[in-house]
Amino acid sequence: MNTQRIIIVGGVAGGMSAATRLRRLIEDAEIVVLERGGHVSFANCGLPYYLGGVIEKRDSLLLQTPASLGSRFGLDVRVNHEVTAIDRSAKTVRVRDLVTGEQTVERYDALVLSPGAAPVRPPIPGGERMLTLRDIEDVDVAMSALSAAPRTALVIGAGFIGLEMVENLVHRGLEVTVVELGDQVLPPLDPEMAGPVAQRLRDEGVDVRLGTQVTELGPDTATLSDGTVVSAEFVLASIGVRPETSLAVAAGIELGSRGGIRVDDQLRTSDPSIYAIGDAVEKTDAVSGEQRLVALAGLANRHGRLVADVISGKTIRVRDAFGTAVVGVMGLTIVATGWNEKLLRAKGRDIRVIHTHPASHTGYYPGAESMSLKLIVDATTDEILGAQGVGGDGVDKRIDVISTAMAGGLTAADLADLELAYAPQFSSAKDPVNMLGYVDLNAVEGLTRSIQWHELAEELEAGAVLIDVRTPREYADGAIPGSINIPLDDLRARIAEIPERRLVVHCKVGQRGHTAVRILAQLGRDAVNLDGGYLTWSAGIS
Amino acid sequence: MNTQRIIIVGGVAGGMSAATRLRRLIEDAEIVVLERGGHVSFANCGLPYYLGGVIEKRDSLLLQTPASLGSRFGLDVRVNHEVTAIDRSAKTVRVRDLVTGEQTVERYDALVLSPGAAPVRPPIPGGERMLTLRDIEDVDVAMSALSAAPRTALVIGAGFIGLEMVENLVHRGLEVTVVELGDQVLPPLDPEMAGPVAQRLRDEGVDVRLGTQVTELGPDTATLSDGTVVSAEFVLASIGVRPETSLAVAAGIELGSRGGIRVDDQLRTSDPSIYAIGDAVEKTDAVSGEQRLVALAGLANRHGRLVADVISGKTIRVRDAFGTAVVGVMGLTIVATGWNEKLLRAKGRDIRVIHTHPASHTGYYPGAESMSLKLIVDATTDEILGAQGVGGDGVDKRIDVISTAMAGGLTAADLADLELAYAPQFSSAKDPVNMLGYVDLNAVEGLTRSIQWHELAEELEAGAVLIDVRTPREYADGAIPGSINIPLDDLRARIAEIPERRLVVHCKVGQRGHTAVRILAQLGRDAVNLDGGYLTWSAGIS
Ligand SMILES: Cc1cc2nc3c(=O)[nH]c(=O)nc-3n(C[C@H](O)[C@H](O)[C@H](O)COP(=O)(O)OP(=O)(O)OC[C@H]3O[C@@H](n4cnc5c(N)ncnc54)[C@H](O)[C@@H]3O)c2cc1C
Ligand SMILES: Cc1cc2nc3c(=O)[nH]c(=O)nc-3n(C[C@H](O)[C@H](O)[C@H](O)COP(=O)(O)OP(=O)(O)OC[C@H]3O[C@@H](n4cnc5c(N)ncnc54)[C@H](O)[C@@H]3O)c2cc1C
Ligand SMILES: CC(C)(COP(=O)(O)OP(=O)(O)OC[C@H]1O[C@@H](n2cnc3c(N)ncnc32)[C@H](O)[C@@H]1OP(=O)(O)O)[C@@H](O)C(=O)NCCC(=O)NCCS
Ligand SMILES: CC(C)(COP(=O)(O)OP(=O)(O)OC[C@H]1O[C@@H](n2cnc3c(N)ncnc32)[C@H](O)[C@@H]1OP(=O)(O)O)[C@@H](O)C(=O)NCCC(=O)NCCS
Repeated sequence: MNTQRIIIVGGVAGGMSAATRLRRLIEDAEIVVLERGGHVSFANCGLPYYLGGVIEKRDSLLLQTPASLGSRFGLDVRVNHEVTAIDRSAKTVRVRDLVTGEQTVERYDALVLSPGAAPVRPPIPGGERMLTLRDIEDVDVAMSALSAAPRTALVIGAGFIGLEMVENLVHRGLEVTVVELGDQVLPPLDPEMAGPVAQRLRDEGVDVRLGTQVTELGPDTATLSDGTVVSAEFVLASIGVRPETSLAVAAGIELGSRGGIRVDDQLRTSDPSIYAIGDAVEKTDAVSGEQRLVALAGLANRHGRLVADVISGKTIRVRDAFGTAVVGVMGLTIVATGWNEKLLRAKGRDIRVIHTHPASHTGYYPGAESMSLKLIVDATTDEILGAQGVGGDGVDKRIDVISTAMAGGLTAADLADLELAYAPQFSSAKDPVNMLGYVDLNAVEGLTRSIQWHELAEELEAGAVLIDVRTPREYADGAIPGSINIPLDDLRARIAEIPERRLVVHCKVGQRGHTAVRILAQLGRDAVNLDGGYLTWSAGIS
Repeated sequence: MNTQRIIIVGGVAGGMSAATRLRRLIEDAEIVVLERGGHVSFANCGLPYYLGGVIEKRDSLLLQTPASLGSRFGLDVRVNHEVTAIDRSAKTVRVRDLVTGEQTVERYDALVLSPGAAPVRPPIPGGERMLTLRDIEDVDVAMSALSAAPRTALVIGAGFIGLEMVENLVHRGLEVTVVELGDQVLPPLDPEMAGPVAQRLRDEGVDVRLGTQVTELGPDTATLSDGTVVSAEFVLASIGVRPETSLAVAAGIELGSRGGIRVDDQLRTSDPSIYAIGDAVEKTDAVSGEQRLVALAGLANRHGRLVADVISGKTIRVRDAFGTAVVGVMGLTIVATGWNEKLLRAKGRDIRVIHTHPASHTGYYPGAESMSLKLIVDATTDEILGAQGVGGDGVDKRIDVISTAMAGGLTAADLADLELAYAPQFSSAKDPVNMLGYVDLNAVEGLTRSIQWHELAEELEAGAVLIDVRTPREYADGAIPGSINIPLDDLRARIAEIPERRLVVHCKVGQRGHTAVRILAQLGRDAVNLDGGYLTWSAGIS
C-alpha cells in the first residue's frame, strides 16, 4: 500500500493549517492530527477578548471542530490525545488518550510538530493561583475565577498580550495593576514610543508598575520587589512563552541557539522525516540574519501551509521574518516591525532614526487622529531596519505599508515615492509614510541633520544653543528647559539675536524645525533639528 | 547679481509644493508664485465635503495664505494674477492683475508650470447654469446656489469626484440624480466591482442613470438622451478634466500624445528653462510604459518637490505612475490601482484575475465588515498589473499594501509571504492580501484553475456542469440557474452523482470552491472554480 500517513502534533494555528492544506494536496493520504487539549482550530488570539466580554460567545472562538474537519477535509482529528514520545527509527509516535488513559503507537511517514509554546510562570511563593492564557481550557478556568466577581486584578508582564489582558480586565470593570520588570511597557518598542502607552493606561486608571517584579502572592494580594503590597484577587501572568520542545528534545531532535526547534529552509528538523513549524520553531530574522523566536499567528499559519507543500513534494522558500505585530490598548493602536533602536544601538549598528507625528488623514476633514511613527534605517545603505507606531486610526495601515516596503527591498527614501491612496478622509496628499521618506531624504542628502531626544542633554552640555521655533503660546504651554523661543516666521528677521554657536532647533514635531534648520544652514549657521520635536523629547524623558 | 529668479504658475498642489521646497533649498532665490484665482494652497480635494457640510468652515480649506507663505517661506505670492503669455526667448512671462487689469512682464531664470486642469463642460443647450468644482470661487458659487434651497440635484458624470458630489448632495438632503454615459459608475473599475457601488447609491435613494447623457438643461429640469426628463434644480458636472495647456501651447511648448504637457525624466518641458508638473502634465504609466494623464494630488505634491530639487541642481528620478486612488461613497470605500481588466483584455494581455470577498478582520471579533478585492496579474510573469477593492473598514489599507508591493516589484505570489500586522480587531492571521497571494499561488502551481464570471455562460453552453457546493440553505436563497447543489462536505460521498464532464464548481466567494476543485481534480475530474463565487458572478451579471 502506498497511502502516505502523516501525523501532526498540535491542532491549532500551524498544525491545522498544515492538515487542511495537505488534504487539498494529497487526497488519499491518511492525515492524523493529535491534540492534547480538548479543542482544535481555536482562536488563541481571541482569548483575551473573550475574557473581557468583547467576544461574547465561547463558540465563536472555535473555528472548526474535529467533526467539521473530518467531514470537510477527511482529517482524523483526535483531541485529548497527547503525543508522549517519538521513536525516530521506527517512525512511530506514542500517544496517550488523556480521557481513557489508553496508550497507542502510531506509525508515520512524515511527522509535523506544531506544539506551540507554553506560557512562562514566574516561580514565586503562592504562585499556584496565578493563571495563564494559552488555550480554551485556560480561558475556562479564568472565566470561572472571574465569576467569583473579584474586584482587583494583577497582570504580570506588560508585553503585547499582557496589555491585551489589562485592557480586557479593565473592560470587565476590574481595578487592574500591571507589573513589568523592564522599565517600560511593551519591550519590543523603544521607550519614547512606549511611554505614551503607559501614560494612556494610567489615564484609564490602570496602576502601572515598571522596573518591579512580583515576589510573592498572598490569597488576594501580591508583594512586589520594591516591598509594596497590591491588591490582587485575580492574577494573570504573561511574561512570555517558552517553545514546547520537550517532545523534540526527548527524541534527540536538535534545537537552535535560542532554544527553539531548529529547521532548515524546507522546515525540516534534524530528522528528515520530521518537520516543525510555529511558535516552537526558530525563525531566521530578516534584519540580522540571526536565529530568533517569533510567536505570531501569521507565521504559524503561513508555515503550516508551506510544510504541507514540502511534504507533497514541492520545494518551498521560507522567507526570513520581520515579526510585524499590532496590539490595541485603550483606544491606542500600537505596531512594530523589524528591529528597534535599543537593540541596534546595543549591536553598534550605524543607524538613522526618524520620528514623526502625523495625522491619520487631512486636518481639514473631521475626525483626524494623531499618531507617532518611528523609522529606523541603516545609516549607510538606507535599508529600513524597523518601524514602530502608536496612535489611533490608520496606524495599522502604515506599518503594513512599511512592512511591505521592507519585504520588497525598498529603501527609506523610496517611501517618498509610494503612491498611496488619498482622499481627505483616508490620508493626506503626502501620506505619513511618504513623509517618512521625505524626512529620510533630507538626511540622506545632508540637507537637515538631526539629533535624537536622548542626545539633546549631551549637545547642550557641550555648549549648543537650543532654539524653540514654535509660537510664543506653544512655548508658554511647556518648553524644554534652557531653550530660546524664536518663532519660525521671525527667524530671518531675528537672526542677529542668535549666537554664533552650534544650534539645536526644535518645534512640536520636527516639521517647522526642518524649515528652520534649512534657513539657518543657508545663513551659514551650524544647526541640527531635534528629531520628532517636543513631542518625542517629552515622551522620551518622561 | 546672481540671485536666481523662479516663477511658478499656479499656487496650489504642485506649484506651492515646488515653491516651499525651493525656499528650503535656495534661501536667496527670488520665488514668485502667480495664481489667477483668489486663493492659493487650498484643499481642492475638500471642496465636495465643504459643499456637503461635512467640512463646516470655509477657512479650513485654506491651508496657507499669501501672507503666511510670505512670512514663513519668503515667497512672493500674487493671487488674482494670471499669466497670459510666455516669451521663451526673452525668458519672461506676461502677467495680468485681474483686479486692476494692469499688465506686467516678469523675468525668470526658471519657470514652473503647474496650471492644473479644467473641468470639461458638456456643450448642451441650457448648459450655462451647470456648475463645476475646481477651486474656491467655484465652491462659493455652488454654495450660494445651494442657499436657494433647491430640492433636487443632478450630477453629470459618475467618476470618483462625481460620486463624491453625489454623496455630499445627498448628505445635504437633496434628491440626487446621477447620469453617466458609460454603462457603469466609476469607469476606472471593472463592472463587477462597480455594480455594488451603483446598488448602494440606489439603496440610499440616488437615481442612477447609466448609459445616458444629458442633452439639454431646462430652468429646473434636465432632458436625457433616452428622452426622460428629470428634475434638476441644481446641476453639477464632473465628466473629467482637460489639462490646462493653453499657455504652454501658445508658447510652442510640446504636448504629448494624450494632450498633456510633455516632460522628460527631469520634469523639463521641450524648453529647458521651463518645467511642468501636476494635472497639466503627462506621466509615464508604470504598467504599460505609455504616456497617461493622472490627475491626483499625491503626484502633484511629489512632483512639486522633485521639480524644486531639479532647479536647485540635483538629478532626480521620477517614478512611473500607478495611479492609486480611493473614494468614499455612502459608507463604501472604493479603491483602485494600476490597470483594470477591461483595458488589459482590450489590449490582448494574457492576464489572470482573482476575486475575493474577505472580512476586514477576524469574524470572531465584533464589527468585521466584508469587502471585495480584485487582483489582476500577468499570466506569465505573475507581475501585479492592477487591483481594485470595494467595502468598508480596511479597504484603503489593502490597496496601499498592494500598491507598495507593486512599487517594490513583488509578484502576486509574493503577497502570500507579507508579514502584515495581525490582532483580531485589525486583520486575520492570513490577511486578505496574503490570501490573494494564496489564491494566485494555486493558479501558478496549476492546483486550482478558475474561470471568470463573464466566462461562465460560454462554459455552460459548451456543456460544462455547474456544481454549487454551498449549503442547501444558501442554495435556496438564490442560485445560478442550471446549477446542481452538492454541498462541499458531501462531495466525496456523492461523487457518483456527478457526471463525467467538464465541471465548473462554485461557492459563495470561491474558497469552498477551491477545496471542491482540489477534491474533484484529485478524483480525476476536470474541474474549475468560478472565481469570486456567487458574489462576484451576481455583481457582474446584474
Ligand atoms: C492569548 C494569546 C493572544 C495572542 N494574540 C496574538 C495576536 O494578536 N497576533 C498574533 O499574531 N499572534 C497572537 N498570539 C500567538 C499565536 O496564537 C501563536 O503564534 C500561534 O497560535 C502559534 O501556532 P502554533 O501552531 O505554533 O501553536 P498553537 O496554536 O499554540 O498550537 C499548539 C497546540 O499543540 C498542542 N500540543 C503541544 N504539545 C503537544 C503534544 N505533545 N501532543 C499533542 N498536542 C500537543 C497544544 O495543546 C496546542 O493546542 C496569541 C497567543 C495567545 C496565547
Ligand atoms: C473637487 C476635487 C476633488 C479632488 N479630490 C481628490 C482626491 O480625493 N484625491 C486626489 O488625489 N486628488 C483629488 N483631486 C485632484 C487634485 O486636486 C489635483 O490632482 C491637484 O490639485 C493637481 O495639482 P496642480 O498643481 O496640477 O493643479 P491645481 O491644484 O488645480 O492648481 C493649479 C492652479 O493653477 C492656476 N492657474 C492655471 N492657469 C494659470 C495661469 N495662466 N496663470 C495663473 N494661474 C493659473 C489655477 O487657477 C489653479 O489654482 C481633486 C480635485 C478636485 C477638483
Ligand atoms: C482555519 C484552519 C483550519 C485552516 O483552514 P484552511 O482551509 O487551510 O484555511 P482558510 O479557511 O483560511 O482558507 C484558506 C484557503 O482557502 C483559499 N481561499 C481563500 N479565499 C479564497 C477565494 N476567494 N477563492 C479561492 N480560494 C480561496 C486559500 O487559497 C487557502 O487555500 P490553500 O491553502 O490551498 O491555498 C487553521 O488555520 C486553523 O485552525 N486556524 C485557527 C487557529 C489559528 O489560526 N489561531 C491563531 C490565530 S487566532
Ligand atoms: C502645503 C504646501 C504649501 C506645501 O508646504 P510644505 O512645507 O512643502 O509641505 P508640508 O507642510 O506638507 O511639509 C512637508 C515638509 O516638512 C518636512 N517634514 C514633515 N514632517 C516632518 C518631521 N516630523 N520632521 C522633519 N521634517 C518634517 C518634510 O520633509 C517636507 O519638507 P521637504 O519637502 O523639504 O522634504 C502645498 O503642498 C500646498 O499648497 N498644499 C495644498 C494644496 C494641495 O495639496 N491640494 C491637493 C490636496 S487637497
